[in-house]
Amino acid sequence: MTALARLRDELGEAVDTTAESLEAARADRSGHRSPGRPLAVVHARSVDDVQRTLRIASATGTGVVVRGAGTGLAGGANAGPGEIVLSTALMNRLVEVRPDDLLAVVEPGILNADLNARLAEHGVWWAPDPASRDISTVGGNIATGAGGLLCAKYGVVRDAVLGVDLVLADGRMLRLGHRTVKGVTGLDLTSLVIGSEGRLGVVVGATLKLRRLVKGDACTITASFSAVGAAASAASSVTAAGIQPAIMELMDARSLRAVHDLLGLAAPPAGTVQLTVRTDGPAAREDAGRIAAVLTANGGDVTMTEDPVEGERLLSIRRSVHPALAALGTTLIEDVAVPRSAMPAMFEEIARIERVHGLQIPTVAHAGDGNLHPNFIFEGEEVPESIWAAADELFRAAIRLGGTLTGEHGVGELKSRWLAEELGDDQWELQRRITRVFDPQGILNRGKVFADA
Amino acid sequence: MTALARLRDELGEAVDTTAESLEAARADRSGHRSPGRPLAVVHARSVDDVQRTLRIASATGTGVVVRGAGTGLAGGANAGPGEIVLSTALMNRLVEVRPDDLLAVVEPGILNADLNARLAEHGVWWAPDPASRDISTVGGNIATGAGGLLCAKYGVVRDAVLGVDLVLADGRMLRLGHRTVKGVTGLDLTSLVIGSEGRLGVVVGATLKLRRLVKGDACTITASFSAVGAAASAASSVTAAGIQPAIMELMDARSLRAVHDLLGLAAPPAGTVQLTVRTDGPAAREDAGRIAAVLTANGGDVTMTEDPVEGERLLSIRRSVHPALAALGTTLIEDVAVPRSAMPAMFEEIARIERVHGLQIPTVAHAGDGNLHPNFIFEGEEVPESIWAAADELFRAAIRLGGTLTGEHGVGELKSRWLAEELGDDQWELQRRITRVFDPQGILNRGKVFADA
Ligand SMILES: Cc1cc2nc3c(=O)[nH]c(=O)nc-3n(C[C@H](O)[C@H](O)[C@H](O)COP(=O)(O)OP(=O)(O)OC[C@H]3O[C@@H](n4cnc5c(N)ncnc54)[C@H](O)[C@@H]3O)c2cc1C
Ligand SMILES: Cc1cc2nc3c(=O)[nH]c(=O)nc-3n(C[C@H](O)[C@H](O)[C@H](O)COP(=O)(O)OP(=O)(O)OC[C@H]3O[C@@H](n4cnc5c(N)ncnc54)[C@H](O)[C@@H]3O)c2cc1C
Repeated sequence: MTALARLRDELGEAVDTTAESLEAARADRSGHRSPGRPLAVVHARSVDDVQRTLRIASATGTGVVVRGAGTGLAGGANAGPGEIVLSTALMNRLVEVRPDDLLAVVEPGILNADLNARLAEHGVWWAPDPASRDISTVGGNIATGAGGLLCAKYGVVRDAVLGVDLVLADGRMLRLGHRTVKGVTGLDLTSLVIGSEGRLGVVVGATLKLRRLVKGDACTITASFSAVGAAASAASSVTAAGIQPAIMELMDARSLRAVHDLLGLAAPPAGTVQLTVRTDGPAAREDAGRIAAVLTANGGDVTMTEDPVEGERLLSIRRSVHPALAALGTTLIEDVAVPRSAMPAMFEEIARIERVHGLQIPTVAHAGDGNLHPNFIFEGEEVPESIWAAADELFRAAIRLGGTLTGEHGVGELKSRWLAEELGDDQWELQRRITRVFDPQGILNRGKVFADA
Repeated sequence: MTALARLRDELGEAVDTTAESLEAARADRSGHRSPGRPLAVVHARSVDDVQRTLRIASATGTGVVVRGAGTGLAGGANAGPGEIVLSTALMNRLVEVRPDDLLAVVEPGILNADLNARLAEHGVWWAPDPASRDISTVGGNIATGAGGLLCAKYGVVRDAVLGVDLVLADGRMLRLGHRTVKGVTGLDLTSLVIGSEGRLGVVVGATLKLRRLVKGDACTITASFSAVGAAASAASSVTAAGIQPAIMELMDARSLRAVHDLLGLAAPPAGTVQLTVRTDGPAAREDAGRIAAVLTANGGDVTMTEDPVEGERLLSIRRSVHPALAALGTTLIEDVAVPRSAMPAMFEEIARIERVHGLQIPTVAHAGDGNLHPNFIFEGEEVPESIWAAADELFRAAIRLGGTLTGEHGVGELKSRWLAEELGDDQWELQRRITRVFDPQGILNRGKVFADA
């Protein structure tokens, strides 16, 4: 029997081969799609469904691409000819909430925002807040090691997972990690799975580390600068002054302008760059005052509000960057990170690449942690080689400045060719061998992360 | 040439075969020693020394035991006949401090307290604070994934390392991780090395994630209870009430009594159990007030001070537990962790084990994170089998309650026989295979963690 026949036989209705589903599974949100339609989409509803699918895939040597909500920006969930798509989106139960132990047990398909809405009833939250929180799954967040706006203060996914249930390529399930906040029994495989982008196994459950909801008012500050270097220096001065904002986002002139256009706001003065900063917790007001002083001293034109509605309005400008840029063309959203003090230098590199390649690269940054998203805008469906040439310079510049290829979006398919550049050949090879311990045949997310298809 | 001759040839003076050094290398602080003296101690002074030693060990198939300060409590650094001891204690430079980027680069042999004294000049600190901070190395802290008193609020080693330089068994060096706070390029091998207890390679350098020194006054609270269950419930009520103390330590009646004896203080009323709690940061006073209320409501007899000298005196009582118990006999310090809400149940299990085995098991706990240190006291040098039988019940009880064998001390040699119990056979085997990717011959810390000598 073929793999497809066996899937139908064992999983019945869960196996979907409609043209629409197969077509949708070719692409995530990276602006890149696979060369053709996959074999089938399996909508798993249980751990058992996942295990059966993987046993069939193993027995038949069929490639499997794991898919959460498909909001990834690195092509990680893109599936092509001959591959089975294993979707965990329907495994979306909140299994357990323990506010006293600050933990929750979830299935992988639950959407980040849905989870947090449910947790809020108990006075707790799961801190990772990717801008895609309304549309991305917790399993996908774990698989990519996602970050978010609040992560400079409250941590990324890596800081917020106690344990993971992982189904291996051969269908066996491992329970990794603990329900305890501390634990050093053996190797820390939970951490290894976080950010492993589906190469080590399928995340079918997770024990999450929660926080109490933060009490008290938040303050929101915006500061306008006439040059991006000044804004970046001002942001690193805030960190260097020892103040920890909850959010500190930078929009360069091009991205600020695009958002104002999208939202129908008056155009900002030419060249205006904006920092949006939020403080919270018991010292929110005091911190905001100190941050305002640092920003002013660095040449910023500062406004501040304690009004929650006005605060949300200011932040929604930052949150509108994705759609605003999408309106300009197809976007390749890049994701380099550098040490915070190197942010001004990284912006200079971006300006240089714009000049040399004759491109416009609107850039936003999680300025509190040195993570920049330069956006390459182009016409058509596929990223042209000329854009990749510019991106190549961007990656090399980030690495040269002590930084990394990807701060939060992952390597996926699109960045696999630069991976060895950052890791070095020895580490690349060692990492690949580790994936083979989990998946000896190499059927899971083949060619993703490691270009070994 | 023999391994020893080659070592002498290449490393000269760094090779130490004095009886005193060989004898010292047989034991850490676990109360357990190896069956005999190792071959030699190599006092590495550079990465090159480490690489040369490992190349010789690989070429000759000689076992290597990595050693920091030898303060471990699991027998991890204990070296026996035929083995080379590779000491990283002399590689103790602070290479770089970047207060603006909140990072420091260190060699592995620097003592935790020395590092923090140097960092304090820059207004920053490295949060992990094992009670052994004055005598243990940062490399050892990383290799064990150490925790400390402050870790419920400020995190364990796992939360405080950005990157690690690792020399593999064959002498190659890998640079793992980043200088950036965010980064998801490939598998997170930095996290995998943390807590790997020398099985994956030798940590020869680390990039540490720092924090700003916490400003403002701290408040210290003590609360006396007449039963350990009441104290444990009170502690979990503090967490459940959503308050995060910097320190929350529990001393049961036997350990409190032993400290009072050691320090020559008046004996506490029979059966008195004590919680010592510290709050810090901008809300220190407010938090202390709320905690005092929770503890009082749970039957505690509460005192509170903002005086730093008095606060230190109260905490020094907790810090004197190790020497106080050592005065009673040889101690096997155990280290189970359970979800915070299960602490009262864990104390009941300990009381049961005391009754059934006719033992006294003085216990202290990092009550803020559910990590208990039950101490088995015995006569003589080797842990008797009767004590191991009681410890066996302790471990099983912790696992049954959703907990783990070891919260912070590691598996080492002493707990390797329980590892598969917690991990399951499949995960145990997978972990062992991962170590073989790093160290195919299995020369590093043989028989530690995995009983595979
Ligand atoms: C508008 C927008 C804003 C965004 N903002 C952010 C941001 O702020 N921060 C950020 O980090 N990312 C951001 N992203 C990227 C994306 O949302 C994240 O990477 C997210 O974590 C992906 O989740 P998903 O469920 O969509 O996963 P998918 O896209 O379906 O999959 C992503 C990767 O994870 C693997 N995977 C998914 N589920 C599992 C599972 N259960 N087990 C094993 N592997 C699995 C896939 O194989 C793939 O390699 C944004 C995306 C968009 C479109
Ligand atoms: C009084 C006392 C109090 C303690 N309190 C705590 C506490 O509060 N929290 C806690 O977590 N621990 C505590 N410990 C245990 C111990 O101090 C820690 O485990 C510490 O991290 C060990 O550091 P070390 O330098 O002494 O390492 P060692 O004991 O020399 O080695 C420990 C393990 O790490 C490996 N190792 C050491 N250096 C390296 C390296 N450079 N590369 C690779 N592997 C290496 C060794 O092979 C061994 O397996 C305490 C110990 C004592 C004696």
